[in-house]
Amino acid sequence: MILTVIGIGLIGGSIAKELKQKKFCNKVIGVDSNINHQKIALNNKIVDEIYSLKQAVQMSDIILISIPVDNTSKVLKEVLDLVDKQIVFDVGSIKEKVIQHVNAHQKRKNFVATHPIAGTEFSGPEAAHIGLFKGKINIICNKEESSKEAVEKISELYHILGMENIYMNAQDHDIHSAYVSHISHISSFCLALSVMDKEKDEKNILNMAGSGFESTVRLAKSNKEMWTPIFTENKSNILAVLNDYIEKLNSFKSAIKEDDYEKLNDLILQANGIKKILN
Amino acid sequence: MILTVIGIGLIGGSIAKELKQKKFCNKVIGVDSNINHQKIALNNKIVDEIYSLKQAVQMSDIILISIPVDNTSKVLKEVLDLVDKQIVFDVGSIKEKVIQHVNAHQKRKNFVATHPIAGTEFSGPEAAHIGLFKGKINIICNKEESSKEAVEKISELYHILGMENIYMNAQDHDIHSAYVSHISHISSFCLALSVMDKEKDEKNILNMAGSGFESTVRLAKSNKEMWTPIFTENKSNILAVLNDYIEKLNSFKSAIKEDDYEKLNDLILQANGIKKILN
Repeated sequence: MILTVIGIGLIGGSIAKELKQKKFCNKVIGVDSNINHQKIALNNKIVDEIYSLKQAVQMSDIILISIPVDNTSKVLKEVLDLVDKQIVFDVGSIKEKVIQHVNAHQKRKNFVATHPIAGTEFSGPEAAHIGLFKGKINIICNKEESSKEAVEKISELYHILGMENIYMNAQDHDIHSAYVSHISHISSFCLALSVMDKEKDEKNILNMAGSGFESTVRLAKSNKEMWTPIFTENKSNILAVLNDYIEKLNSFKSAIKEDDYEKLNDLILQANGIKKILN
Repeated sequence: MILTVIGIGLIGGSIAKELKQKKFCNKVIGVDSNINHQKIALNNKIVDEIYSLKQAVQMSDIILISIPVDNTSKVLKEVLDLVDKQIVFDVGSIKEKVIQHVNAHQKRKNFVATHPIAGTEFSGPEAAHIGLFKGKINIICNKEESSKEAVEKISELYHILGMENIYMNAQDHDIHSAYVSHISHISSFCLALSVMDKEKDEKNILNMAGSGFESTVRLAKSNKEMWTPIFTENKSNILAVLNDYIEKLNSFKSAIKEDDYEKLNDLILQANGIKKILN
């Protein structure tokens, strides 16, 4: 089995590394427009060879597209135009637009839309590592639009990475992503911006980082190449969440302003409800 | 050496437990209005005996006040009214109001205002544990207003817990606390509220929690007994930060609305600056 990885970053690189170690594939071909990433991927034995997209697709059995979401639709179409029996899957955190883009493609059934819920705040092939996916969840969207064989193969692939597969409608997926993941990143970026604006002496940030700041700001280390496209591609869902979130902040603000203990207690108690869900 | 702990919660209980284990004191007296906390503290051997505040102060060498910040000033004054040579310290995350409250007290020099930067999202004596403070920072405020002997003793106490002592003006401390810690908690409470409002099916939250949500929402498990008083007592600083923070969120919002890639890239790149400070 030969796997092609288009976009050798944290996710693509980690998938390639682990699938080869676990002998799911015996060769990994890399496609990446970034020459530095090509070199690192070869040096770190994440990929065995580098080819052009066209050559790589023709040589392989499974093709993974793991590039920023604003480019996924275009590259996916290019790949589907080239495939015969190959199976193609992507790993982006937005699914509806990508699926719509190839909806009428004659090879639509060869494509499986997935979103493995895993990652770190680091990026690039140098961040790729084995074990990233263990015990995590992978979401497969609109599986009825893919061939049974393709869904089975990709499900197996994620099982091998230690993940549980669940199924979701693409539209629902994008709303949930906005609420549970994308807003967390915006919240974290803005926290970092506020603190750095105010705290000209970095020592004060360091001294107090243990007081909760470190965990809420971790995601602010995430890179623009991945996140700017996510924010714009999932625009309508994210704007809705952002409005909700700012509304909640304004509730806190007016309760603090008015020394409204009862209201603050009530807001905090409601927020504590998250304990029951996550513990 | 006999230590009295007024308010046997996560912080007070953890300090008591570790100081006794490390033989800094040979007896710990507990004072707590919550009978359930008294029982747990006795059962878990966090304290050796329970006394009234007056008896406890008279029997001990060092008195720790570890209760919610809205009550600290009042209890501190009661304690200072009773002390002779005893040393008193508090651990609250707001310092200016407390210090002002006892500024003119004839026993002011017996009091050391501290803020150990440590904690978890859990609370109560059942959450108390050894090792909570190791490698963390303790802030001592306005140390020139305390006697040299008192500052030395309390510094030694925190060293024994494995902490580094740093010194700060109380006013600065409260501003930094608002920026680096308190806003993180508000941000996290509001994230939890937004997500739970929208996601009526808790499974979706669980499935996607790995995508950054879990770390940003951890602090939303924090309790109202501690945080409502902090928000109202540090009101003016917190309102200033909250305004800044909402402004940053609005910048993100308009950049997303207008598909302004350049602006989004720029905001994320600026936020990434936190890497240099925290790594």
